[in-house]
Amino acid sequence: MSRDDLSAETLNLHRTFRGKIEVASKMPVDTEEDLSLVYTPGVADICRAIAANPDEADELTSKGNMVAIVTDGSAVLGLGDIGPKAALPVMEGKSLLFKKFAGIDAFPLCLDTQNTEEIISIVKALAPTFSGINLEDISAPRCFEIEERLKKDLDIPVFHDDQHGTAIVVLAALMNALKIVKKSKLNTKVVINGAGAAGIAIADLLLYAGFTDVTLVSLEGVVRKGASWMNERQASMAEKTNLNRVHGGLNEVIAGADIFIGVSAPEILSKNQVQMMNSDPIIFALANPVPEIYPEDALEAGAIVVGTGRSDYPNQINNLLAFPGIFKGALNKKVRDITIDMKVAAAEGIAKVVSDEELCPEYVIPSALNETVAQTVANAVEQSVSEKVECLV
Amino acid sequence: MSRDDLSAETLNLHRTFRGKIEVASKMPVDTEEDLSLVYTPGVADICRAIAANPDEADELTSKGNMVAIVTDGSAVLGLGDIGPKAALPVMEGKSLLFKKFAGIDAFPLCLDTQNTEEIISIVKALAPTFSGINLEDISAPRCFEIEERLKKDLDIPVFHDDQHGTAIVVLAALMNALKIVKKSKLNTKVVINGAGAAGIAIADLLLYAGFTDVTLVSLEGVVRKGASWMNERQASMAEKTNLNRVHGGLNEVIAGADIFIGVSAPEILSKNQVQMMNSDPIIFALANPVPEIYPEDALEAGAIVVGTGRSDYPNQINNLLAFPGIFKGALNKKVRDITIDMKVAAAEGIAKVVSDEELCPEYVIPSALNETVAQTVANAVEQSVSEKVECLV
Repeated sequence: MSRDDLSAETLNLHRTFRGKIEVASKMPVDTEEDLSLVYTPGVADICRAIAANPDEADELTSKGNMVAIVTDGSAVLGLGDIGPKAALPVMEGKSLLFKKFAGIDAFPLCLDTQNTEEIISIVKALAPTFSGINLEDISAPRCFEIEERLKKDLDIPVFHDDQHGTAIVVLAALMNALKIVKKSKLNTKVVINGAGAAGIAIADLLLYAGFTDVTLVSLEGVVRKGASWMNERQASMAEKTNLNRVHGGLNEVIAGADIFIGVSAPEILSKNQVQMMNSDPIIFALANPVPEIYPEDALEAGAIVVGTGRSDYPNQINNLLAFPGIFKGALNKKVRDITIDMKVAAAEGIAKVVSDEELCPEYVIPSALNETVAQTVANAVEQSVSEKVECLV
Repeated sequence: MSRDDLSAETLNLHRTFRGKIEVASKMPVDTEEDLSLVYTPGVADICRAIAANPDEADELTSKGNMVAIVTDGSAVLGLGDIGPKAALPVMEGKSLLFKKFAGIDAFPLCLDTQNTEEIISIVKALAPTFSGINLEDISAPRCFEIEERLKKDLDIPVFHDDQHGTAIVVLAALMNALKIVKKSKLNTKVVINGAGAAGIAIADLLLYAGFTDVTLVSLEGVVRKGASWMNERQASMAEKTNLNRVHGGLNEVIAGADIFIGVSAPEILSKNQVQMMNSDPIIFALANPVPEIYPEDALEAGAIVVGTGRSDYPNQINNLLAFPGIFKGALNKKVRDITIDMKVAAAEGIAKVVSDEELCPEYVIPSALNETVAQTVANAVEQSVSEKVECLV
């Protein structure tokens, strides 16, 4: 389908259906008796049961399977700060994906405020209706504080997908890509171009998963101890990345790198720079729709494994591989938090969907539409929770 | 079904289904192409269209047909302040009724705060996702300020059902009951027992609809100018009710009354008091499940038309007759506000579902499950909006 045809069809489809989601009934309401069971007077018994034991809300209401998709519309797709109403189509789309891939009910809430404190107190007040909070498309650095504070204050999992979803899928793809180039996470040099929410989350997860040499680069230059332009989160990353304290920009750090991960801007990685990398480079160029380097150029310059954010090239790094299964595992286990161990387990779950026999440079990560992934990820997450519990016993 | 059987069955039903509502997809997501239409990259065009013209959100997202059912769990059914989680089963039930009777998607939001200012700012921030706000089971007097401020600040309709839903259905029932006793609203004396949210809303609507002699009674006594115990809203009602400045309680005002409307407590109206009323009294005893007086007693004492809140007696005064049609009309007309004229129109719509041939003392109001009511109410509401617009042109 051409870009214009796609545009016309998607507009027509949204206008015809008037959006993508509806609130549907799981029980019949046809007779007087139905009404007395789902509403008054019968419902009073359900209320009393929950008032006596609030945990019963997970079993007796939709709460147990309900996730809020919360945004302030400040960083939507590549469109930027388009506001809450214009963000709604994306959040509804996400809701569909939660349902299709994990059977989870997810409701979009697009907030008409970008004030950090307000967002935190609103989400806290909304928590009784939900068993999980998926933060979405909230700009950095506010997204860090919002997520951290909510994780601390709420007893249900809070997950900022733009950070952790991306990080998990990148880690999964790297696990498989490293097998192809026969390198180890212990001594590969990783350059992450883009030091916003996604870049920092990727760096954090890679370091936790055992990568040792990670360097973040932003438009302002390399993230390094002492640089004056960094925000709090970047300054904290400077403590554990760029161990050689390299100054400069991408050009200075790309030389000798094994892995390039771009979460930045179109076409900022040149073929020349790929040639400066270590042998058998891995390139994940995730800027969308125009990647940091087009796969054909990266391959021509010597890259062995190339991934993008696009569905029309091999190895699409798509958050859709992570969030449905992560939440499914978290809701099944009724955890209070999605821990970093659960994220690593999720990445392992995604990676192992690609069997050793199937694994090849063009297939290091399963298709976003592979319906087995979410269940595999959920199982891996649940397993990691069980092990953690056993370990504490 | 016995009370115990009902209790067991409703618990079993809620546990089996894990609550009553789900978030469902209106569009398929089966192929790569589907995904590109409902999510990226196609969805970006929908976002851009709404960013360019925010009103398009009504047509291109679920917002246009989406209502929030908002509570703080402070005054749930007759159970009182049971909190947000325990309130959820009622709100989910309401959601089912919105869908069944008006085809409206309604999502429950049970807030973990009872602070008036917080509730107001939360609902304002949530507004972009919704085209209407149904406030529910919020205790008086906070419910008054919350509703008033939200009506003023939001450009979508806000409706506190406990107040206005009840008032509309009472007015509808009275319109028909007066035909039976051949009295006019212009010279009947109305006593409303209960001066909380519902009682005050009923008084307000009756006065607007042309009743002239209305008296409110609370546990503290008759609402009257100068009484020291009144809240702000009661004080304001004292200006236009109890015109003869009667002191005392129910006993003092019931003598000579034509209509008794109870929104108060079980069995507080005696047969003796009914006998003190004017000839052919009308009794709406709405306390639930035990009414102010049982219908058999009221009839024995001389009442001609008796209504209750119960489904097992004739003339059930049930909000379900009002809210689906009111919101349907309001959403269809995209009004910014549900005005008092729309409420009167809704009452007329409900009343006229009972034809002159059918009208009798046991049938002054249609059954709560009558599926034609919501559409009739919606039509009446839309008509009143159109007339208003014509009138302004």
